[in-house]
Amino acid sequence: MKQYLSIEPWRIVERRYFPEYNEVSESIFSIGNGKMGQRANFEESFSGKTLRGNYLAGIYYPDKTRVGWWKNGYPEYFAKVLNSVNWISVNILINGQALDLHTMSILSYERVLDMRQGLLERKFTVKFPQGEIIEVEAIRFYSMVYDEIGALSYKVKAINFSGKIEVACILDFNVRNQDSNYDEIFWTPIGEGVKQDIALVSAKTKKTDFHVSCAVKNSCTFGCSSQWKIEPQKVSQIIQQEISEGETLTIQKISCTTSSFYYPKDELEERAIAGLNDACELGFEELLKQQKKYWEDRWKENDIIIENDVSAQQAIRFNIFQLNQTYTGVDARLNIGPKGFTGEKYGGSTYWDTEAYCIPYYLSTAPPNVARNLLIYRYNHLEKAIENAQKLGFNRGAALYPMVTMNGEECHNEWEITFEEIHRNGAIAYAIFDYVNYTGDDQYLIDYGLEVLIGIARFWAQRFNFSRAKGQYVMLGVTGPNEYENNVNNNWYTSYIAKWCMEYTVKVLHHVKDKDYDKYKLLLKELDFDALAEVERWKTIAGNIFFPEDKERGIFLQQENYLDKEIRAASEVPENERPISQNWSWDRILRSCFIKQADVLQGLYFFEHHFDKETIRRNFDFYEPLTVHESSLSPCIHSILATRLDYHDKAYELFMRTARLDLEDFNNDTNEGCHITSMAGTWMAFVKGFGGVKVREGRLEINPFLPKKWERYSFSFGFRNHLLKVTVKADEISIQKKFKGSLTILFKGQVTTLFEGINTFYSVTKAAIR
Amino acid sequence: MKQYLSIEPWRIVERRYFPEYNEVSESIFSIGNGKMGQRANFEESFSGKTLRGNYLAGIYYPDKTRVGWWKNGYPEYFAKVLNSVNWISVNILINGQALDLHTMSILSYERVLDMRQGLLERKFTVKFPQGEIIEVEAIRFYSMVYDEIGALSYKVKAINFSGKIEVACILDFNVRNQDSNYDEIFWTPIGEGVKQDIALVSAKTKKTDFHVSCAVKNSCTFGCSSQWKIEPQKVSQIIQQEISEGETLTIQKISCTTSSFYYPKDELEERAIAGLNDACELGFEELLKQQKKYWEDRWKENDIIIENDVSAQQAIRFNIFQLNQTYTGVDARLNIGPKGFTGEKYGGSTYWDTEAYCIPYYLSTAPPNVARNLLIYRYNHLEKAIENAQKLGFNRGAALYPMVTMNGEECHNEWEITFEEIHRNGAIAYAIFDYVNYTGDDQYLIDYGLEVLIGIARFWAQRFNFSRAKGQYVMLGVTGPNEYENNVNNNWYTSYIAKWCMEYTVKVLHHVKDKDYDKYKLLLKELDFDALAEVERWKTIAGNIFFPEDKERGIFLQQENYLDKEIRAASEVPENERPISQNWSWDRILRSCFIKQADVLQGLYFFEHHFDKETIRRNFDFYEPLTVHESSLSPCIHSILATRLDYHDKAYELFMRTARLDLEDFNNDTNEGCHITSMAGTWMAFVKGFGGVKVREGRLEINPFLPKKWERYSFSFGFRNHLLKVTVKADEISIQKKFKGSLTILFKGQVTTLFEGINTFYSVTKAAIR
Repeated sequence: MKQYLSIEPWRIVERRYFPEYNEVSESIFSIGNGKMGQRANFEESFSGKTLRGNYLAGIYYPDKTRVGWWKNGYPEYFAKVLNSVNWISVNILINGQALDLHTMSILSYERVLDMRQGLLERKFTVKFPQGEIIEVEAIRFYSMVYDEIGALSYKVKAINFSGKIEVACILDFNVRNQDSNYDEIFWTPIGEGVKQDIALVSAKTKKTDFHVSCAVKNSCTFGCSSQWKIEPQKVSQIIQQEISEGETLTIQKISCTTSSFYYPKDELEERAIAGLNDACELGFEELLKQQKKYWEDRWKENDIIIENDVSAQQAIRFNIFQLNQTYTGVDARLNIGPKGFTGEKYGGSTYWDTEAYCIPYYLSTAPPNVARNLLIYRYNHLEKAIENAQKLGFNRGAALYPMVTMNGEECHNEWEITFEEIHRNGAIAYAIFDYVNYTGDDQYLIDYGLEVLIGIARFWAQRFNFSRAKGQYVMLGVTGPNEYENNVNNNWYTSYIAKWCMEYTVKVLHHVKDKDYDKYKLLLKELDFDALAEVERWKTIAGNIFFPEDKERGIFLQQENYLDKEIRAASEVPENERPISQNWSWDRILRSCFIKQADVLQGLYFFEHHFDKETIRRNFDFYEPLTVHESSLSPCIHSILATRLDYHDKAYELFMRTARLDLEDFNNDTNEGCHITSMAGTWMAFVKGFGGVKVREGRLEINPFLPKKWERYSFSFGFRNHLLKVTVKADEISIQKKFKGSLTILFKGQVTTLFEGINTFYSVTKAAIR
Repeated sequence: MKQYLSIEPWRIVERRYFPEYNEVSESIFSIGNGKMGQRANFEESFSGKTLRGNYLAGIYYPDKTRVGWWKNGYPEYFAKVLNSVNWISVNILINGQALDLHTMSILSYERVLDMRQGLLERKFTVKFPQGEIIEVEAIRFYSMVYDEIGALSYKVKAINFSGKIEVACILDFNVRNQDSNYDEIFWTPIGEGVKQDIALVSAKTKKTDFHVSCAVKNSCTFGCSSQWKIEPQKVSQIIQQEISEGETLTIQKISCTTSSFYYPKDELEERAIAGLNDACELGFEELLKQQKKYWEDRWKENDIIIENDVSAQQAIRFNIFQLNQTYTGVDARLNIGPKGFTGEKYGGSTYWDTEAYCIPYYLSTAPPNVARNLLIYRYNHLEKAIENAQKLGFNRGAALYPMVTMNGEECHNEWEITFEEIHRNGAIAYAIFDYVNYTGDDQYLIDYGLEVLIGIARFWAQRFNFSRAKGQYVMLGVTGPNEYENNVNNNWYTSYIAKWCMEYTVKVLHHVKDKDYDKYKLLLKELDFDALAEVERWKTIAGNIFFPEDKERGIFLQQENYLDKEIRAASEVPENERPISQNWSWDRILRSCFIKQADVLQGLYFFEHHFDKETIRRNFDFYEPLTVHESSLSPCIHSILATRLDYHDKAYELFMRTARLDLEDFNNDTNEGCHITSMAGTWMAFVKGFGGVKVREGRLEINPFLPKKWERYSFSFGFRNHLLKVTVKADEISIQKKFKGSLTILFKGQVTTLFEGINTFYSVTKAAIR
């Protein structure tokens, strides 16, 4: 844990330069706009620890996997979102000496992520070895309004001297991924040059042949004279100037980046130039104004307000802010990488995180087509999922979605994950259910959903096998969401969601048959689906699955024989051995009882209404103490269940852990990037947990509670055609409903009708709400 | 399976050039002398499929491991015996056209491995595109007498033309390993040149800094004029000559290779030159004569003769021949790589193969110090084994020997092997038992054995944990010798050998205490060993271990819950899906019931006398049909057990499978090298299986049977100070005992005393022996 950042409601602030945490800050202060993103690297030359990172959505490279001995079925490559063109660099020389924060004497320093306005700001004063002091002020953003545009203002003020200043404004495409498996450079140069004061550089990816062009215009306050320097894949505009004491030199850089993901390859340069010219015509100040306006509007809909707890307030906004920077939902080809655009780990690829964590967020905070696009993404990959299953030896249209993917193909590099962490297939089916349940859009099932569900159900039916020894169906060789176990038998969560998938598919099948018989018949034919035999088989299996449990404790077992382990509380692991993933051998972790994320609890969260509260309690009481929460996806789910069980302190503790995961670097890995997808989990922990929001059989339920520490909180969300703002105080809950019409919900267990405007509910004592 | 080689009792013969099998033949026809080895590459330039391979014992490189995501405890490198200097190349040009068997018209062709004399021979006639026909005859060997010397005679005869011949005699150190993980070149040049008609080249390994020099002298029958050509790391002597029809040009190359494994670095060149000059003084013919003599003597002691079955005869000799080429036992720093010097797979490193398969061979066929050296090798690595265990989280002197090693450090690259395939620790203890039992050298226990055993027993005591659920000790997360299962619980074999290790260590502890109390006290002190508490704990654990079994079938279970799998006979797997390792996904293999090598049977083989015959039979009957024998180490053990159970046909079938494994390329992988260590298994299958030889509590037992097909067989072996030759015919068994004195054995279950000379036993009917 690191607590070096200042706590403010709207801003993340670093008040000193922490060389040892610089890469962590680079992740936390990242900016993006859904199409592009960037780590909060310094503009000027810098000799300290840094991971330069600029990423473009959808532009990836199939990096050859690194495995000990390749075996059949292993993925050939690990797809990686590429570190891409760097347009921000501004190298400063004062009297011939280059500015470098890492080696110079820093008199003042502040790096700020302004979440209200969507800006990265930096202000510092530094003393050069020869005594010159300069003050620098930089503001940078990726425009949310013009999604190919990045803008930077960089001001240098001479504090105590007059002398020479040289500024090199650099556009550089000599970029490599830090995580390249074989130190390969993934880009091939196309060209570089200057066109009418616009710096231009273009490159393409090897193998995938994505083309990217970036155009940058630099401007300088007092009409500086400049020279261009053109090197391979690098264009620099060098400004040399006399600067007088007290004077400020302002550099502005505006960039426009285009890619063949959106345009024909031969138009990229001209598109970049045109986009850049449009942006320059608006100018930096206007772009900035529109950026502020965009975020102002966004926060109106999206903000969560917490009174009396600045730390929580800052954290929840940070999570919402980063999510909105990462994915806007306009393009069904895109998805949400676990690190968004804030680092290279996990390759920017798609994981089950999207279905299990992000979709609920977007369902509640964006128009339905955003979540729908995320579903369509998987629909479009169905064929690849069927191929993937075939490679492993499955047949008859069984679909196994990849654990990690960029284009539908599996591209992780560990067999224990790709072959065995198959629960993702369940989450993909669950997301369909979730979407339809939330939106009521059951046409989706007819048009897309059923086809995916059949592929998934077919997989599960083949993946179970009948154990003569048990007289039941078993699922062998599985890795559950708790990745601190590999290749276990009868992982409760996986078997449970698999059973549910088969049952849900049968239900949907009937639904589609009733609703659109023609489509139903067509689909059966297309899929060579034997409705009678296959459904019968699914029912037979679903009805006779072995689920490991401990009758004495009244709990489900994470996997068969889990209780053969030495059971100890995670609290017994000394602080200096945490996270165990960084301090223990993998061998020791695998054999220990400790849980990365408790998948039994994940199942109880998904299927809460299948179980009574005492069952959930017994399982929570058993598993929570064993969980080290070293998956970023863990604490949010535990927090939600804790609210259900009225474990309010626990719920708050775990909420803060998920909300401040990156801000305090709980797992000592934020240097690799922020845990973007888990931020949706933070939001869930708030709205589903504290807010007690859920939708069951199409009906909204709200059942909020107020953590002790808080005076008041409010959050907004959309449900069908309603927009609700819930405000919770100790003795009063109000639900403001926008738009006409009424909405019947279950409020604190009571059927209640909400009307347009403010609906207020009182409670005589705090305790009644608490 | 490939049956393209001719079957002869003393020779392996390839009568045609099979381009598709060339790499297989290169493995099979490999030559070596324990210190060096070489694949049977062609001397001349060649454009077909080939893996050029020259290997030097002990010269390795720590190649950075290739793993998906590195985790704590993963080995940093995979040690690899290096592909080294190539001294054999002879490029032939006829009228300016280079000889290339792959593209030219081959009129006749024969490649021969002459096992009786230790020679690789090749003879072919080839027609050049312009019509010139030449006949080539090559003989090559690594001298068993002078172990730094290699020799080649290469004759070219002009059959139908007179014209120009150019011969380039090349010495080349521009060599890379095909299996380099990151395409790295492991050698750094030192130099190259010519000294008084001797070509010289030297290089050193990166990181490990092994230095190697090779000196070669080329000679030519009719005093050819020649030119030297020196390129980086390559020295060529180019002979240009007119050749007349019917004339033969003979080239001889003699090489001497020295390494810093044996000499100071600064002496390598002069040592190589001196060694070469000595060899050249003897001359090719004399070297050849001594080579023949060496092998003649070797076969006198080592031969196994089978009458009436040339295929078996050829195969058993091939196995013995290759073993003797690989390891001579003179150097305790060396060991036996699974592929010997015949390929790069498995890196030439040491596996448990040595203890479980090779030691019995060398115990019976070489002086005791050879097997002892192999034990000392592990003794010398004890400290590293303790470090290795510490890395994984074990403590108090627990030792985990590596699964793969070159210098005592673990260097495999898959966690499921390095962390989990821990049964190797058991084999290392077993080898100590085996050695002492066979040789009677119990001083070894005092001097070395006990220390190793304590480290191993300590490991097992920590590796078991007490399961409250079962009320017994369990061993979780194990990979048994059957590597087609990973990370299973309670692998019967591993748990059994672990239990035995603890018990045996206690026994040896008492023994040492009785025999040498001072040493005992000293050891206890050095090892900080609490004799009372630790022994008590070992006994407690060993007495209460959970062993999975199926009571109904009366069998031990390979692992807990093995019977949850769908049990089918391996015979149901279609031929075109074999080997499954090359045709099925790893996922499918892991979840199938099929067994790479049946480890329960391995346990019953090791501990035969702990079980009654019917128990062994029930387990054999259950497991053998499930076994696909895709480990080369599998069929030999099954064959031995089959003889014990009087399954004579099965025993023969499996013997032939192990004996001809490479000759017929059963597992479609001989191209990567021969399965050298499993050749010791072949020998065991013969002597321990057919010969019925075992030693129990120091007493030799012999109980031979004669496979149906055979008329007679004989084999020799040493036991303590006796040398025995056993000859088995249908109605008569004779045991010739060399050296003075008598030996009391158990012959066919009867206590029998053998005297010097021939001891003959008759049987009235064949059946009595059969």
